[in-house]
Amino acid sequence: MFFHRQELQHKATPDKPDAVYAHKLQEVLGGQYGEITVAMQYGFQSWNAHMPGKYRDLLYGIGAEEMGHVEMLATMIAQLLEKAPLGVTEGAMQNDPTVAAIIGGTDPQHAIVAGAGARPVDSNGNPWTAGYVTASGNMLADFTANANAEMQGRLQVSRLYHMTDDAGVRDLLAFLLARDTMHQNQWIAAAQELREEGIEDLPVPSTFPLSKEHREASYQYINFSDGQAASEGSWASGPTPDGKGEFEYLAEPPAGVPAPPPTKPDVRFHGTTGMPEPVEKAMGVAQDALHKE
Amino acid sequence: MFFHRQELQHKATPDKPDAVYAHKLQEVLGGQYGEITVAMQYGFQSWNAHMPGKYRDLLYGIGAEEMGHVEMLATMIAQLLEKAPLGVTEGAMQNDPTVAAIIGGTDPQHAIVAGAGARPVDSNGNPWTAGYVTASGNMLADFTANANAEMQGRLQVSRLYHMTDDAGVRDLLAFLLARDTMHQNQWIAAAQELREEGIEDLPVPSTFPLSKEHREASYQYINFSDGQAASEGSWASGPTPDGKGEFEYLAEPPAGVPAPPPTKPDVRFHGTTGMPEPVEKAMGVAQDALHKE
Amino acid sequence: MFFHRQELQHKATPDKPDAVYAHKLQEVLGGQYGEITVAMQYGFQSWNAHMPGKYRDLLYGIGAEEMGHVEMLATMIAQLLEKAPLGVTEGAMQNDPTVAAIIGGTDPQHAIVAGAGARPVDSNGNPWTAGYVTASGNMLADFTANANAEMQGRLQVSRLYHMTDDAGVRDLLAFLLARDTMHQNQWIAAAQELREEGIEDLPVPSTFPLSKEHREASYQYINFSDGQAASEGSWASGPTPDGKGEFEYLAEPPAGVPAPPPTKPDVRFHGTTGMPEPVEKAMGVAQDALHKE
Amino acid sequence: MFFHRQELQHKATPDKPDAVYAHKLQEVLGGQYGEITVAMQYGFQSWNAHMPGKYRDLLYGIGAEEMGHVEMLATMIAQLLEKAPLGVTEGAMQNDPTVAAIIGGTDPQHAIVAGAGARPVDSNGNPWTAGYVTASGNMLADFTANANAEMQGRLQVSRLYHMTDDAGVRDLLAFLLARDTMHQNQWIAAAQELREEGIEDLPVPSTFPLSKEHREASYQYINFSDGQAASEGSWASGPTPDGKGEFEYLAEPPAGVPAPPPTKPDVRFHGTTGMPEPVEKAMGVAQDALHKE
Amino acid sequence: MFFHRQELQHKATPDKPDAVYAHKLQEVLGGQYGEITVAMQYGFQSWNAHMPGKYRDLLYGIGAEEMGHVEMLATMIAQLLEKAPLGVTEGAMQNDPTVAAIIGGTDPQHAIVAGAGARPVDSNGNPWTAGYVTASGNMLADFTANANAEMQGRLQVSRLYHMTDDAGVRDLLAFLLARDTMHQNQWIAAAQELREEGIEDLPVPSTFPLSKEHREASYQYINFSDGQAASEGSWASGPTPDGKGEFEYLAEPPAGVPAPPPTKPDVRFHGTTGMPEPVEKAMGVAQDALHKE
Amino acid sequence: MFFHRQELQHKATPDKPDAVYAHKLQEVLGGQYGEITVAMQYGFQSWNAHMPGKYRDLLYGIGAEEMGHVEMLATMIAQLLEKAPLGVTEGAMQNDPTVAAIIGGTDPQHAIVAGAGARPVDSNGNPWTAGYVTASGNMLADFTANANAEMQGRLQVSRLYHMTDDAGVRDLLAFLLARDTMHQNQWIAAAQELREEGIEDLPVPSTFPLSKEHREASYQYINFSDGQAASEGSWASGPTPDGKGEFEYLAEPPAGVPAPPPTKPDVRFHGTTGMPEPVEKAMGVAQDALHKE
Repeated sequence: MFFHRQELQHKATPDKPDAVYAHKLQEVLGGQYGEITVAMQYGFQSWNAHMPGKYRDLLYGIGAEEMGHVEMLATMIAQLLEKAPLGVTEGAMQNDPTVAAIIGGTDPQHAIVAGAGARPVDSNGNPWTAGYVTASGNMLADFTANANAEMQGRLQVSRLYHMTDDAGVRDLLAFLLARDTMHQNQWIAAAQELREEGIEDLPVPSTFPLSKEHREASYQYINFSDGQAASEGSWASGPTPDGKGEFEYLAEPPAGVPAPPPTKPDVRFHGTTGMPEPVEKAMGVAQDALHKE
Repeated sequence: MFFHRQELQHKATPDKPDAVYAHKLQEVLGGQYGEITVAMQYGFQSWNAHMPGKYRDLLYGIGAEEMGHVEMLATMIAQLLEKAPLGVTEGAMQNDPTVAAIIGGTDPQHAIVAGAGARPVDSNGNPWTAGYVTASGNMLADFTANANAEMQGRLQVSRLYHMTDDAGVRDLLAFLLARDTMHQNQWIAAAQELREEGIEDLPVPSTFPLSKEHREASYQYINFSDGQAASEGSWASGPTPDGKGEFEYLAEPPAGVPAPPPTKPDVRFHGTTGMPEPVEKAMGVAQDALHKE
Repeated sequence: MFFHRQELQHKATPDKPDAVYAHKLQEVLGGQYGEITVAMQYGFQSWNAHMPGKYRDLLYGIGAEEMGHVEMLATMIAQLLEKAPLGVTEGAMQNDPTVAAIIGGTDPQHAIVAGAGARPVDSNGNPWTAGYVTASGNMLADFTANANAEMQGRLQVSRLYHMTDDAGVRDLLAFLLARDTMHQNQWIAAAQELREEGIEDLPVPSTFPLSKEHREASYQYINFSDGQAASEGSWASGPTPDGKGEFEYLAEPPAGVPAPPPTKPDVRFHGTTGMPEPVEKAMGVAQDALHKE
Repeated sequence: MFFHRQELQHKATPDKPDAVYAHKLQEVLGGQYGEITVAMQYGFQSWNAHMPGKYRDLLYGIGAEEMGHVEMLATMIAQLLEKAPLGVTEGAMQNDPTVAAIIGGTDPQHAIVAGAGARPVDSNGNPWTAGYVTASGNMLADFTANANAEMQGRLQVSRLYHMTDDAGVRDLLAFLLARDTMHQNQWIAAAQELREEGIEDLPVPSTFPLSKEHREASYQYINFSDGQAASEGSWASGPTPDGKGEFEYLAEPPAGVPAPPPTKPDVRFHGTTGMPEPVEKAMGVAQDALHKE
Repeated sequence: MFFHRQELQHKATPDKPDAVYAHKLQEVLGGQYGEITVAMQYGFQSWNAHMPGKYRDLLYGIGAEEMGHVEMLATMIAQLLEKAPLGVTEGAMQNDPTVAAIIGGTDPQHAIVAGAGARPVDSNGNPWTAGYVTASGNMLADFTANANAEMQGRLQVSRLYHMTDDAGVRDLLAFLLARDTMHQNQWIAAAQELREEGIEDLPVPSTFPLSKEHREASYQYINFSDGQAASEGSWASGPTPDGKGEFEYLAEPPAGVPAPPPTKPDVRFHGTTGMPEPVEKAMGVAQDALHKE
Repeated sequence: MFFHRQELQHKATPDKPDAVYAHKLQEVLGGQYGEITVAMQYGFQSWNAHMPGKYRDLLYGIGAEEMGHVEMLATMIAQLLEKAPLGVTEGAMQNDPTVAAIIGGTDPQHAIVAGAGARPVDSNGNPWTAGYVTASGNMLADFTANANAEMQGRLQVSRLYHMTDDAGVRDLLAFLLARDTMHQNQWIAAAQELREEGIEDLPVPSTFPLSKEHREASYQYINFSDGQAASEGSWASGPTPDGKGEFEYLAEPPAGVPAPPPTKPDVRFHGTTGMPEPVEKAMGVAQDALHKE
């Protein structure tokens, strides 16, 4: 169950409205790595968890926090839009670069659809989609996904920080940056703990029998480009992070195998086969019934 | 530039057709973590790279390999579909559970749209979308995204491995599992190398001044759920993975701040404000011109 | 069958071109509540109707009108774009705010994709999707959906009215506003008539036996937030609109039930279960065959 | 702020697993009118509200409840999937219709992507999208949208009720049906209260000056189909629900106006104009610079 | 303006219901090349046309026909669904392959969302999207798009013809096949006529000055794969269809040019540049203001 | 297999950065007819081909070239973005129309998401989707689709050519224009060759027995609009391009057939049927079991 309290985790009030910036800030609300993504992602990971205890509690605990971040950003955006002009094309824009920037730099749907309200979309107006969510049931994979989400999220917030000099906005971003710092650290620590406790290991999934994969190819860097600088990396020689092998560098791919011959499906799919004979003949007796009416 | 050779990196021929399995195998071709995703992701990361040398070569080298994986899976799927029946509803299905399974378990578009060919979609027929791709310009974030993609991908392949007993299919999956093992190890090694070389560090982005974030919240686990088990994790106390702090556990959130008052945008957005006076009056003199025709 | 006549229901010609406004006007052509939505929605409702007679005729009659509205808006947008400039970045824009606004405020695809033509997209360029359409087979639900669509549509048109002072555009909008007024009234009247005739009733669907729902929770307002003002509403006490109960106000939720224990699916899904034993052992004898090659 | 409690509002445990039914139940979790939609919709309406007090508290109070419904359904689906088989095509399916049904009737991504977990998608596997959300800032329109959402939602739950005889599932559905009954009543009551308090009125938006619309068309039913039964409805004569007019029935549309002449955009859009002269000539002198390199 | 007549262009009644086939038939209603696509495509091409006369009349005339095809298919699908069962998982399915096929082979949303009605989606349940529509303003390009749409459409209908032996369904498909035959011929004829009248020519757009393209590459087949069979085609030597050149075959690509050096954007984007110095220093004096609070 | 070489097919370096133009250029990288579309389309057509030899080699040969075009455009866009400003709203924009244009005319995700890198999206920021791809297995249909793709692509490039005067950008576009000229010619030649060799013919699919379609409607132009100019076209009289008939012009449609009566599905779908009796009674005895708990 979820409960709402009519407070915000941190102050979310701009010094002054800025509809152009509201447009941009949508990215970390409703974008691929925005707060809706992590709220939903941690939620589905917790509901699908196969273990009680500290890992699931971690997901529960942070999932609800992220829903509160959704609220803070929506609240901030609504205030940034508070003085959003209607944007009449003629007249005003002709003499004023600021108005011109506002006309071009605002999200038309902020005005037309939401009446100066926040929307569950990204900074290009793409609606948020659950195609962004990862919840596989394997915690080592998912915590890595989570670490990435917090990295991409903090990166985007830091870029947005440089795009405004509004102290109120920056104050909220400074808080979100701190929380993303925490969450990056936390998912990395949790992923490491899964390995230390012997619950999961590399490669993911560690419960699949390694003997069933083609082990000769498990640690080969195979270079499909013509630069050779990748041979200098730690991924080209030395022990592997999973502790189970040694990296090997192949400057170019081994010989492949011939492609199989093209397929010949049922003639009634009417694919191009190079056989110009009539379909009736090709289909033969057994399929006659289908062609009678 | 890309060049094509009419060979496959590994044999990709099933022992016998299986249109139901072809439907499922689409996931690792055209799904969120399928081969199209990683091919495009490594491609865009390389084209957007800001450094020449080993890291960019790594992206180039593996990106082209993944395009070859797209080809191997498409080739395999086309062969699995080679004997795909047309699936007439009446007649055949009434007495045969196998036919019933085929009718229900195949992708209708494999037959109707592609004429027994592979498609750039997932196992539910959702078209692949570039919303799956990550290429931020920050390599520590992106390599973590890549590690996750290879984990999710190998997890899905391992599940698919258990869903067939066709030796030809399993042989290809065993090869893909090995390559995913390599790629997981490789991205983890590369992420570590970025840190060791001092090019990037935690938290991402490490080039954003930490002093500008609200440091008091940077290492707090704040529990927004009512279980306390998360206090037992390594993310609740002790040094943080970024080496810059100590984790702290808050059993419940600190007091929040009051939500700001609701916004009052221009009355011409016709939002509900509780002020029933006529809009003409509210808009006043300055906006008269807009209302004249 | 549909027939086309080379006339428009109302004049749809702007006084002068305005490519920035064309961008915005796309919302009511190809947005969530644009004319394509209602044309398709009323069409599918009529084709799926289970009764002949006045309700189906109502759907037929208005569905075709909406297709004509699609045409009027497309025609208007094409004319607004008639003088759309190509938008060369360099040169022109440096000295002229109007050009700057045009560069930023126009839809690039209007020029690049459609050659100064209308497109089936919204004001952010999102392609229209049938995910907007509602046609459930239950007319009381669907007429409520229709009333909402006409309300949202008229709201958007009214906002767009304030965003231009072009008399020709405003003349068309004034016509659309009137038709939306009609259509709001009409769907509300039709929904009411369904109830008066005893064909449908609240709650929808009225044909589902009420005795099968948990009636003790059917009229409780349960407050999951910490404000108490909602207790003052007509939804907190007194008779309910369905005429079958009395509203009740619960200041906070009753106690819940414990969450069920986490699931333990087949080990071959390789989810994290906290059981580090090898998968081979866990799967046991019966599944041996799957692992042999 | 949102807080999570490790309880469910109602018991959500099936009597036995049923992966085929889990597939269907996804509709009311992640479909157009599923619980994610209403949770997000009420959330954005509250964050965009322009008035404090009972209406906003209503949105806050129910929004958090719906997040708990998301959790209940996800929990139920994970349990329905607990014994989800891997679905090997060959062998098992040949002799057993039940297996055939499972192969065809389950969501492949439940197994491959989520490892027997719930997903934020509908019953066809389409990812949830924020294109479903409505939050316009006008409460009369939005509460009508909400009433519709609860009607469509209850209709879908009632259909799902008939599709299982699992007592545990039906118990949860019986609870959801009751809550949907409440929520339908509540939004209808709230919409009515807005009108009674004079805050909003029909037609929406009531704050737009009626004098600016083409009033002669505001109450005409215009029949664009060839049936005349719609003339019998309450929308064809008599007073209108907005109390501001009388319905009128037009058996067929009045004469239209001629379509405007086709547009002639800049020749450099290379549209087909019927003028075969070379573009260089048509572009003339002033545009010469663009063509020089 | 569009008018509706309560007739169908051709009989659209199945001999008996078949919910599994209804699922498949959705492809040609709401798929990439279904009737909604062509109805919208011809509509937008007509509204964006830059010439009055025979070409625009052609678009008008066929566009309205296609809307009638949408209606015929929706009507057919609703009837195929008329006896759609509810699909209770337990019980019925255990002993009956037909039921198993129905459970697996039907679209769950046909039952849950539409109550046994047609939907604007394809045979995998993907909502129709305007991303399928082409309307560029250039008629030679667009008529080629139209020819393709009618080819793909007729191909899909012919595949669907083989998937049923219901005489009523086949009768409708036989009509649609005939109309697609007409429409293929018609668009090819119209494209040819554009060329004969000198209005458009190859290459499209013929109004762009050929002298501005790199003519040395305009007729070279450049082989980026390692097979040489393409040298045997009519595209490898001889005159070109545009009548302006001779095909040439290059067995492999000419030497390329070196890739440009990687980009170095503003450090405040926090991309990985290999320069570990602090961002403060790199940003220098001029940007100090941004970092002050 | 695909191999990468660290060269570009043609120089792809702008004379100077232009973030506004980068935004527009995305269309031909990640739009409906951008390079990703053709690269994937030719790839899937080759992998699904049913014939070895010159046609498949043609697809292989050009598919890899198009992947190189993806790379050239991504490289160009990254350089155009190299000096992309952060776009602080306040301050800078007030006095400078150029800045205003940049604020409005750039893609916010170029900065926030990609850190001044290219993205797999179109010029409105819509992610590329595989819904754009055509690969049906029928080569005459697919080569027509390819011809169209190259026409639309060249049309868009020519429009983009006029939108810049940057010589470096124009040089790349001039190369792409030439390649599109080649590819248009090539697909038209290949489609013609399929017909000349008797492998495919009009109408597509030529292998479906013509006798099974309603031949009386196969060559009729049926006019559903009220203009008669279409009677003047070559599609209204004379021999048809498939060489199998004569066009006929019908000034208006023949009489249709009555629409079938509305459907009456199972009452448990709770559709509106006009029968107000209780559902329990309507469902009768046989369904009692479903309603017991």
